[in-house]
Amino acid sequence: MNFNINILGTGGTRPLHNRYLTSVLIEYHGESFLFDCGEATQMSLRKQKISWQKIKMICITHLHADHITGLLGIVMLMAQSGNTRKEPLTIIGPIGIKKYLETNIELLRVHKNYDIIYKEIIINKTESILYEDKKKRIEYIKLKHSIDCVGYLFIEKNKPGKFDTQKAESLNIPKGPIRKKLQEGHEVILNEKKILPSDILGEPQKGLKFAYITDTAYSEELSTHIKNFNLVIIESTFKNELKEEAKKKLHLTAKLAAKITKKAKVHQTGLIHFSERYTLNKDLFELLDEAKQEYPNGEIFLTKDGMRLKANKDKFIIK
Amino acid sequence: MNFNINILGTGGTRPLHNRYLTSVLIEYHGESFLFDCGEATQMSLRKQKISWQKIKMICITHLHADHITGLLGIVMLMAQSGNTRKEPLTIIGPIGIKKYLETNIELLRVHKNYDIIYKEIIINKTESILYEDKKKRIEYIKLKHSIDCVGYLFIEKNKPGKFDTQKAESLNIPKGPIRKKLQEGHEVILNEKKILPSDILGEPQKGLKFAYITDTAYSEELSTHIKNFNLVIIESTFKNELKEEAKKKLHLTAKLAAKITKKAKVHQTGLIHFSERYTLNKDLFELLDEAKQEYPNGEIFLTKDGMRLKANKDKFIIK
Repeated sequence: MNFNINILGTGGTRPLHNRYLTSVLIEYHGESFLFDCGEATQMSLRKQKISWQKIKMICITHLHADHITGLLGIVMLMAQSGNTRKEPLTIIGPIGIKKYLETNIELLRVHKNYDIIYKEIIINKTESILYEDKKKRIEYIKLKHSIDCVGYLFIEKNKPGKFDTQKAESLNIPKGPIRKKLQEGHEVILNEKKILPSDILGEPQKGLKFAYITDTAYSEELSTHIKNFNLVIIESTFKNELKEEAKKKLHLTAKLAAKITKKAKVHQTGLIHFSERYTLNKDLFELLDEAKQEYPNGEIFLTKDGMRLKANKDKFIIK
Repeated sequence: MNFNINILGTGGTRPLHNRYLTSVLIEYHGESFLFDCGEATQMSLRKQKISWQKIKMICITHLHADHITGLLGIVMLMAQSGNTRKEPLTIIGPIGIKKYLETNIELLRVHKNYDIIYKEIIINKTESILYEDKKKRIEYIKLKHSIDCVGYLFIEKNKPGKFDTQKAESLNIPKGPIRKKLQEGHEVILNEKKILPSDILGEPQKGLKFAYITDTAYSEELSTHIKNFNLVIIESTFKNELKEEAKKKLHLTAKLAAKITKKAKVHQTGLIHFSERYTLNKDLFELLDEAKQEYPNGEIFLTKDGMRLKANKDKFIIK
């Protein structure tokens, strides 16, 4: 349960009885982060027995109904059931998200016993880092859709290597604050000798980089933001035969999604946000094939409602 | 397909992955009437392969989220998919419904290619008959909930008896406008002799009376509005052991629901709007038992997502 990516839904436009709308939830060391929340997302969340009270932040890509109209339901779920929530909920999204939710809370006189902190994004003005703590940060990137729309990057910081007690003993480093300082990555002077953190720490472990990208038209620039990312979940609304429709509607084909992640040398690419016309496996596998043809050396897969990806060293394992 | 009652959902408060929110759709001679529309109702509608373009009217009982937040999704479904809708959609509900929906249409910039006609109910002021045509009428009744809330009556008018051609011949009634007049229920004078419709028409068939009642506390008066109704779908949120909670939250227990329909001599009673705590059959059957104990001579049943009741002469048959 340290770092999981849960796929709550994979469809576009409308929720279907056998496919929820595109939504992803990250569990990270006991805290959860929800990305998008269309109609019925709460049903998928509960079907997968995910704790909604652990959700610290909800990040909305854009204010189209299929990405947002389940928000009120989740906000009410947090207020009315399970343990009473004490922690505030942070909601991030393009400007307008606060007005949307607060208006609905008022119109339907929703009772809420916790605070909501809004962080509204004004694209190109709001600083790209939206959240940061010791272990991770969340950034937004601008997407190209019919209204303001952003993708989200969830970037785990590099983890310092393991403290090597034997080495520390051999260098006569006393237990206590000096060891702590080294562990935290600072060099120290001991008996007039400089000691570097790398002298007593093992190899640092690279943090994992994850991106959630939907809805967007193709853009050259997109790849620059996800260079060498470990996992990118990216919209793949249409087959290549509908590339003109994709262009017109500012969406991606599976082929274009793979073109973006190939250019960025992304390790794992998960396709998501499938058009309502593709519910049969036959069609979904065609989408996958088109993406694989574009990026044969990449690890590309179809996401699926209920899929869970578990971080394991330098990659995510599908459970 | 002449007169069906489709149960789209049976739960209260929140949609569950295995139980949609309480919603009922009447199919009547090619037109449909939807009652309540909480989050995810469109999923159930489509799961049951019901045509959303045939929905002529949506009647909302009250402005609590679990009865209304799926409305926008259905409105969008009608606009964006299937054949382009030409007919306007009528939306009926307590005052505030127009503001709720129009605000959301505006906030999310929803594109809509047909008209919505709103009929807002001001309880005790708005005339009880909301809609009427040759075959049926829809009325509202006041319920007792924490906000303005109404139940709906769908009353089929009595159907004239079959035209008896043999009798008409024996009375020398010529084919054409005179027969038509009699068929429509008017008496005629033929060769200075008065002929009554009953002379040439068989036994008239009584129309069926249906009511949809949720959410409400117990009230003596309720029974007076549904006297001898053929079918009443009525909320049954709690077991009797939670009767105090039912009272506090202005809901019914199964026992009280049956008390109301018993007093009104309702023929068939369908229980609906079950608390989220009752998902096991064991619990649902307890609700049913409590209702049956209260009204042992009534025909009482649990409604279920996907259930279809088909009008057959003087009653509804569960399909």
